[in-house]
Amino acid sequence: MIKAKIADLINSDQFLQEVEVKGWVRSFRSNRFIAVNDGSTINNIQCVIDFENTSEDILKRITVGAAIKIKGTLKESLGSQQSVEVEVTSLEILGDANPEEVKLTILSPKKHSLEKLREQAHLRIRTNTFGAIMRVRSKLSFAVHSYFQQNNFHYVNTPIITGSDAEGAGEMFKVTGMDLNNPERDEKGNINYKEDFFGKETNLTVSGQLEAETYAMGLGQVYTFGPTFRAENSNTSRHLAEFWMIEPEVAFCDLDGNMDLAEDFIKYVVSYVLENCKDDLEFLKNRLKDDEKTKPAAERSELDLLEKLKFVTENNFKRVSYTEAIDILKNSKPNKKKKFQYPIEEWGADLQSEHERFLVEKHFKCPVILFDYPANIKAFYMRLNEDGKTVRAMDILFPGIGEIVGGSQREERLDVLKEKMKALDIDEKELWWYLDTRRFGTCVHSGFGLGFERLVLFVTGMTNIRDVIPFPRTPQNAEF
Amino acid sequence: MIKAKIADLINSDQFLQEVEVKGWVRSFRSNRFIAVNDGSTINNIQCVIDFENTSEDILKRITVGAAIKIKGTLKESLGSQQSVEVEVTSLEILGDANPEEVKLTILSPKKHSLEKLREQAHLRIRTNTFGAIMRVRSKLSFAVHSYFQQNNFHYVNTPIITGSDAEGAGEMFKVTGMDLNNPERDEKGNINYKEDFFGKETNLTVSGQLEAETYAMGLGQVYTFGPTFRAENSNTSRHLAEFWMIEPEVAFCDLDGNMDLAEDFIKYVVSYVLENCKDDLEFLKNRLKDDEKTKPAAERSELDLLEKLKFVTENNFKRVSYTEAIDILKNSKPNKKKKFQYPIEEWGADLQSEHERFLVEKHFKCPVILFDYPANIKAFYMRLNEDGKTVRAMDILFPGIGEIVGGSQREERLDVLKEKMKALDIDEKELWWYLDTRRFGTCVHSGFGLGFERLVLFVTGMTNIRDVIPFPRTPQNAEF
Repeated sequence: MIKAKIADLINSDQFLQEVEVKGWVRSFRSNRFIAVNDGSTINNIQCVIDFENTSEDILKRITVGAAIKIKGTLKESLGSQQSVEVEVTSLEILGDANPEEVKLTILSPKKHSLEKLREQAHLRIRTNTFGAIMRVRSKLSFAVHSYFQQNNFHYVNTPIITGSDAEGAGEMFKVTGMDLNNPERDEKGNINYKEDFFGKETNLTVSGQLEAETYAMGLGQVYTFGPTFRAENSNTSRHLAEFWMIEPEVAFCDLDGNMDLAEDFIKYVVSYVLENCKDDLEFLKNRLKDDEKTKPAAERSELDLLEKLKFVTENNFKRVSYTEAIDILKNSKPNKKKKFQYPIEEWGADLQSEHERFLVEKHFKCPVILFDYPANIKAFYMRLNEDGKTVRAMDILFPGIGEIVGGSQREERLDVLKEKMKALDIDEKELWWYLDTRRFGTCVHSGFGLGFERLVLFVTGMTNIRDVIPFPRTPQNAEF
Repeated sequence: MIKAKIADLINSDQFLQEVEVKGWVRSFRSNRFIAVNDGSTINNIQCVIDFENTSEDILKRITVGAAIKIKGTLKESLGSQQSVEVEVTSLEILGDANPEEVKLTILSPKKHSLEKLREQAHLRIRTNTFGAIMRVRSKLSFAVHSYFQQNNFHYVNTPIITGSDAEGAGEMFKVTGMDLNNPERDEKGNINYKEDFFGKETNLTVSGQLEAETYAMGLGQVYTFGPTFRAENSNTSRHLAEFWMIEPEVAFCDLDGNMDLAEDFIKYVVSYVLENCKDDLEFLKNRLKDDEKTKPAAERSELDLLEKLKFVTENNFKRVSYTEAIDILKNSKPNKKKKFQYPIEEWGADLQSEHERFLVEKHFKCPVILFDYPANIKAFYMRLNEDGKTVRAMDILFPGIGEIVGGSQREERLDVLKEKMKALDIDEKELWWYLDTRRFGTCVHSGFGLGFERLVLFVTGMTNIRDVIPFPRTPQNAEF
């Protein structure tokens, strides 16, 4: 008796062997054919019962969602939908799923909208779509670790609770151990953080970069892969309050090396899922195709999902300076015809998502790396170019997603960094430890951040970021 | 010209090739021998300069901590300390490290205490000890992912910010987007969480288990690996307020399967680092040996670090029921001689760390799995045995560390689970989604939690948990 996962059984040619399968009923038709799934693959295994010798009571309990144990013989299937099936010799109901109750949930055979599924985030994982997405997400995570480990990067867990609020990447959530209804106060009536758990004001991190930089100065090449947070009231299909970020940081690496790394990394992880998630990606490709049928022809993609992924792995990303990009945008049709909501008038403008989409989707039609941005629209730690007005920043823009990577060469010169902090009113005392990296054996170094969910969005062809993380956190939503 | 990492160069036999090395000066002696480290390995590469043809100015700037670039010829070394060295043809100082300033930091050649190093968590990574620990930690993380992925587990990111406070694993940190000095209040003057970011009270997660269970019911076998939090004022060498936890959850798996999984998993990851971190473990073994020299002979370990790790991979863990353990403890010498702080008098007593240590270190002298604990000292979700008084819980106890794994078969029966929740006053409404897993196709399932830092402690032979995470978070400490 072989106890096997369905993923293994459906590719087996060991016919006639006795097998045991445990899983959940996905469908039951003609009182004869049970489609069983155990989560190991998007494919169900067909189990054929002899209904004449199965009790009425058991037949009634073979309902969608029920957990069952089947023993039987693995056979070549005569059906066109599958190559193997199990001829059932014994069937046990492990856990019922009352059909009346199931009707009220997403487990019912009725097709539900993605919105409705979000309200049942604990059950949606039992659908084909979310099973596929989350298996791909898992494989993609492993590809991330595999890439960096193979390339001798060291994984670093930077802190989630941080006492430093100088990162300047956005609104932060506060973390406290105090009773909010009755917090400790100082003589002026303000909150007395000295009495709080950490003895100071603390927040949830928005980025592990600054801490990762200190580690790159010791270990040479490091990467983070952990949760980060933004308390921004953005109710869009691209924003989450809690999301996972990947942040490599490399000593002795300039911006060119950084762009090479980011491109090589993305190509590796996309290739990895193309190789290791064939069935799930095939399903997601077809799902996307069906989804696009509801759209006007002009809005449908020219490439299907697999073609889009292969396009990324097989083509070089186009590298364009900010200055060139501004020229292209200024002279573009939509700019001249005043179709942009934010017209591009002069050098120095911050690019909006409409501009990024134009460059990627209309002009270059491929992933684009923009670099050398104006200093005053980028963060304090980016390295100033000789021109005194641009910094060695780079953003990678992807079709349909927009910015997927933001990175830079870091300002390694202590005096320049201090000047920049002063100009932006960032307290040196807050970042004494960060400045130490420039004080002792400073060197050229670079890194980038990649929002993991945006990558999962791209790879799965989904359009709402809430559908590619198990339990999304957004304004007004922290259920489960 | 080969630009190579030192980890590759020191194992190279491609003598006479021209190489470029970038790294930091670890020592400089006789105006001739520079030991350079780039973080890729604990080993330095010896670079030999021709001091007669090197300017006085450059010689002065080759100081501990300085970043340098060296070009030269790779040669077989005549020294006994290393097999290769670089005969330097050009040397560039990339980043100075002023010796006067270095004297004030841990970069000075003086040996610092681990306590002192903790205050400089951003610089301690440049020491041999912390380089070794953090490389081992990184490899151990990868071993965790590799084990589960190879065994067809799916990685799940459970939420960090949670609206559920029913997990009952300890004090939680509160998360809020409100201005704490001036929060929104309701008519009664209490905090009005409806006006907070998530529209409800939210906390930092203490465990991803309950959410992981919902995913196991779809994907079959899942694991988490992410940060978890405890707002407990425990200032000990074994507790952190923020730590990383690994939590697998497996459908159709009972407690025996769960114990098999945990043991197999631990043996795999320990074997992985024995295989892949030889140099770092060798260093840590010697560090531990030196450290133990300061202790009375009776307190020194019989086994060195490597022997201890091999002992775990090569021996079966001893499986003992709680009831047997109580018998052993009751009749033990320290109990009879009243040496235990908490004497064991009768069945039902919660085991303290002194008891766990006795079982592991004195009685069995190997890792021990205790199972079938009294129901009333364990969590509500653990499966009740037929005896009505014990639950299918298991803890794995390790020498020197104590509890490293806590797990259980989960109560899969809806009625029993509800009764248990009622008895413990846990609101069903809070956990409606958790109860759904028992309502629809419930099945036997199990899982465990492993505190990653405790594993790193064990593997590195360190004794304070603050030394095995980059930036420890403990009461009164959230610097960096």
